[in-house]
Amino acid sequence: MLRLSRLFVRTLRDDPADAEVPSHRLLVRAGYIRRAAPGGYTWLPLGWRVLQNVERIVREEMDAIGAQEVHFPALLPRDVYEATNRWSEYGPNLFRLVDRKGADYLLGPTHEEMFTLLVKDLYSSYKDLPVSLYQIQTKYRDEARPRAGLLRGREFLMKDSYSFDIDDAGLQKSYDDHRGAYQRIFDRLGLPYVIVKATSGAMGGSQSEEFLSPIDVGEDTFVRCSACDYAANTEAVATGALPADTGTHSSTEVVATPNCPTIDSLVEFLNANHPRADRAWTSSDTLKNIVLSVRHPDDSNETVVIGIPGNREIDLKRVEAQMSPAEVDVLDDAGFAKHPALVRGYIGPQVLGSESASGIRYLVDPSVVANSAWVTGANTKDSHVLHLVNGRDFTADGTIEAVEVYDGDPCPSCGADLRIARGIEIGHVFQLGKKYAQTLGLEVLDQNGKRVVVTMGSYGIGVSRAVASIAEVFHDELGLKWPRVIAPADVHVVSTGKPNDDITAHAEQLAQNLEQRGLEVVLDDRLGVSPGVKFKDAELLGIPTIVIVGKGLAQGEIEVRDRHAGTATNIAVNDVVDAVLAMTHQ
Amino acid sequence: MLRLSRLFVRTLRDDPADAEVPSHRLLVRAGYIRRAAPGGYTWLPLGWRVLQNVERIVREEMDAIGAQEVHFPALLPRDVYEATNRWSEYGPNLFRLVDRKGADYLLGPTHEEMFTLLVKDLYSSYKDLPVSLYQIQTKYRDEARPRAGLLRGREFLMKDSYSFDIDDAGLQKSYDDHRGAYQRIFDRLGLPYVIVKATSGAMGGSQSEEFLSPIDVGEDTFVRCSACDYAANTEAVATGALPADTGTHSSTEVVATPNCPTIDSLVEFLNANHPRADRAWTSSDTLKNIVLSVRHPDDSNETVVIGIPGNREIDLKRVEAQMSPAEVDVLDDAGFAKHPALVRGYIGPQVLGSESASGIRYLVDPSVVANSAWVTGANTKDSHVLHLVNGRDFTADGTIEAVEVYDGDPCPSCGADLRIARGIEIGHVFQLGKKYAQTLGLEVLDQNGKRVVVTMGSYGIGVSRAVASIAEVFHDELGLKWPRVIAPADVHVVSTGKPNDDITAHAEQLAQNLEQRGLEVVLDDRLGVSPGVKFKDAELLGIPTIVIVGKGLAQGEIEVRDRHAGTATNIAVNDVVDAVLAMTHQ
Repeated sequence: MLRLSRLFVRTLRDDPADAEVPSHRLLVRAGYIRRAAPGGYTWLPLGWRVLQNVERIVREEMDAIGAQEVHFPALLPRDVYEATNRWSEYGPNLFRLVDRKGADYLLGPTHEEMFTLLVKDLYSSYKDLPVSLYQIQTKYRDEARPRAGLLRGREFLMKDSYSFDIDDAGLQKSYDDHRGAYQRIFDRLGLPYVIVKATSGAMGGSQSEEFLSPIDVGEDTFVRCSACDYAANTEAVATGALPADTGTHSSTEVVATPNCPTIDSLVEFLNANHPRADRAWTSSDTLKNIVLSVRHPDDSNETVVIGIPGNREIDLKRVEAQMSPAEVDVLDDAGFAKHPALVRGYIGPQVLGSESASGIRYLVDPSVVANSAWVTGANTKDSHVLHLVNGRDFTADGTIEAVEVYDGDPCPSCGADLRIARGIEIGHVFQLGKKYAQTLGLEVLDQNGKRVVVTMGSYGIGVSRAVASIAEVFHDELGLKWPRVIAPADVHVVSTGKPNDDITAHAEQLAQNLEQRGLEVVLDDRLGVSPGVKFKDAELLGIPTIVIVGKGLAQGEIEVRDRHAGTATNIAVNDVVDAVLAMTHQ
Repeated sequence: MLRLSRLFVRTLRDDPADAEVPSHRLLVRAGYIRRAAPGGYTWLPLGWRVLQNVERIVREEMDAIGAQEVHFPALLPRDVYEATNRWSEYGPNLFRLVDRKGADYLLGPTHEEMFTLLVKDLYSSYKDLPVSLYQIQTKYRDEARPRAGLLRGREFLMKDSYSFDIDDAGLQKSYDDHRGAYQRIFDRLGLPYVIVKATSGAMGGSQSEEFLSPIDVGEDTFVRCSACDYAANTEAVATGALPADTGTHSSTEVVATPNCPTIDSLVEFLNANHPRADRAWTSSDTLKNIVLSVRHPDDSNETVVIGIPGNREIDLKRVEAQMSPAEVDVLDDAGFAKHPALVRGYIGPQVLGSESASGIRYLVDPSVVANSAWVTGANTKDSHVLHLVNGRDFTADGTIEAVEVYDGDPCPSCGADLRIARGIEIGHVFQLGKKYAQTLGLEVLDQNGKRVVVTMGSYGIGVSRAVASIAEVFHDELGLKWPRVIAPADVHVVSTGKPNDDITAHAEQLAQNLEQRGLEVVLDDRLGVSPGVKFKDAELLGIPTIVIVGKGLAQGEIEVRDRHAGTATNIAVNDVVDAVLAMTHQ
């Protein structure tokens, strides 16, 4: 029994100053977690119980697909991550340190290398495969902006697993097994999710899907088709070409465009001063060229220009996903100063491209199709060029999905409208393929005695993040509302009695009876705390069933509240235990 | 059921090259752990099960004394450890790192500071106390010489708890509660232990005891009295004075002592050339002065000389324990070069002491009592001084327990003979007192509304080290022999059958029957592996009951082996399940 008179918990009336999202606010206010470091949280007893419950469900479902649990150190030597280049590719996201002997170490962000080497160490034959291994282990990433409490920390608990197979069919089965296990885990946790196509990030590899929980405070944006079952992270969606002007084109014409600082003002100016015969100019006729600074893993910086239709914005997260492991940012003033060819606000592709005098790489969104004509900068202040045709007047070095995806954009699978939503990444399943096995030499002998490279999958669930995600989904203005399966207790008994009175004695007895029936009980046995404060605390803590032993006892009644349904029912004293049992087993 | 055909384990015939101690050798050979980094080990599935079993027992006993489980980050900001000076005091034993913003962090070696601040954060009144909090968490220490596998790693699992009380009586109760819990934990684990007096190390504080498991490969040396219940780590034992020459003394006399490089040769020379009238010179008449370099936490180095009787050796671990947090080493050549007053091999206290011209601090073992006379160096090559009397001819700056304790030395409690043994520190209970609370401002209001500093205890169990300690105690030349309560399974069924034969079918059925009766079963269902190899593996893995389904089956018999007793019994087929159940519940 957890007695609030002794439980190490203190609820807070006020939101913590640094908390932006509900899960962070409520988990701190309800005394589940406490900030210990930037992006590092201490689990208090109630929070620790919730985390252990999530861990248990994850473990059960991983065991059920035959995955075997192991546990690696977090402090790892540099050389292994050097071999796969991730020591560099992770850039500033990796915590690095030097030991007393001067040797380089890192704190593991994920363990692909270590698992690969472990299997290499023990296994040598196709007969040993398939095998799936997992751990539930503390991970470290030096996030630029740790935020939202447990949603994006620098030290967090993750279940990471890895599958090892002899061929693609085996990998597909291991992948499907994990995907199924993840569905069961999130179903059991009560956490809503959408499975979306994903990019591979710094991992390399091929097929990849994310489990996103659709929550507004999520950092990921994803699309779902309104008609078919297509769903993808916006980083991974291939929108393809937007409609473009691809008819017969006039010759290029440079025009003076004074006082046109925005695309709208430019379009207005052109319609007034250089009207088209066939139709009005629109912003979709303009080509906007965005100058980016790309930081490669070897710390070199490259200037890259990306051309997109003027009626769209650039989506840097999408661009970065395609340029990974490089990091991408808009070029700053100092960067522009190094490129006199770039006339800010009037940049056009005429001076761009690897083959041009500037040598600046030039990429375009797929909307900039062959033979499309554009209004764009003339590379001189206050002037633009009309009818600049892709393939006739300029050539890009390549294409890149670069525009922000909009609600209503066509589904790449069926053409119907895409719908946009935000979500939290709660899981990731990933066909790594042979990248790590190849690099680290994980080979086994096949049936013919021939050495073959093993093919791998990697699968992750943010265990601590899942706790926060559940809190995001299950709360109201009064506090948390835990799903029963992970609640820190089954029932919360509030005693409003005074020392040695009937109410106090009855609450104590009821709590013991409930415990004897196999329930985990929180008993608010605090003396000198008002009933009002106790009710508020019960709502804040969010245990799904609340039993109030109070004034009604004199009439032989006890109030039983359902935190999820929001209902309160008076129940005859003798029926309370059965009523609570019925609720907790529903 | 754990099928060896699929279990992620490979046994090794040969000892790993770097393994010095049995637990390290056997845990690696049996496939329980695998080295991943210097002082860092990966837990394979069987090892992970054992570790989880130990963890469970520790958790149950901590919960039973009302301690509450929390969980802190391992990556901690510098400032907190700076406040208590441990950022410096830990010296090179601390893993330090810098994050992307240039801020200093450490990997927590223990969490006194964090727990103190957490309680300060939540609690403010004497009514909130007592409280005991614990965590089972990964710890990091940059050991100079990680060794012996899990016995001394750089990343390891520890249960650390902390008690908070309003007064000394409360602290004593919390301390006694923890001490009792530790006794129950080690009793349940089957791990023999001795509770010995200990020093406080870098922790500060007062009363302190260690739980040592008496194992020859242990790093700690401790004494037990042959008569009373006195027991202490040699670092903490107060041997007091050895017999010394304290009669009436002649005046000092400097004598030439050529060719006397050792104490023995010196004593022989004196008896030949400067014989005493009353008795022969012995080595216990000589005073040996050892020059040490003491590195203080602020990185400054101090030269200190310690005088001990010439018939004893210096024990640097004892000296260091008393000088903690400073580190101690013998002075090297470069150090001697800085002190021309120190004539190597002929150092005497006449030129030593804070008040002397050299200014070198001079400490003596308690055996160098007041008015004791000594033969010692005359601070000139090839000469010694006789009858140098403490208090008459020299004065030390203080005393320090410095000599190696010998078997047969007198017990400080009753005077009977001490016996010396080696052991592994498996637990430590410690009355910290007010040191941390004072420094970090943990105060509560007492019954009179007065602010009082909280008094603390700190208590640790090496959870991963306990696994290795148990392996040290429970093994033989064939392999491990796990106590039932932490064995990775209850019973190991060996099938010596061929594909589709009766033996294979029966072993499978038997394993299922045992599992249905609630036992955890390892089934060696590997095909193409000889019975001999399977028997060897069963002995190496060390599951306490081994059942062999083999040729005897034709006669209706199955062999049941008890790994601890070393017995093998043939049992009628129909009685095997009951026989195994009886063994596992004994």
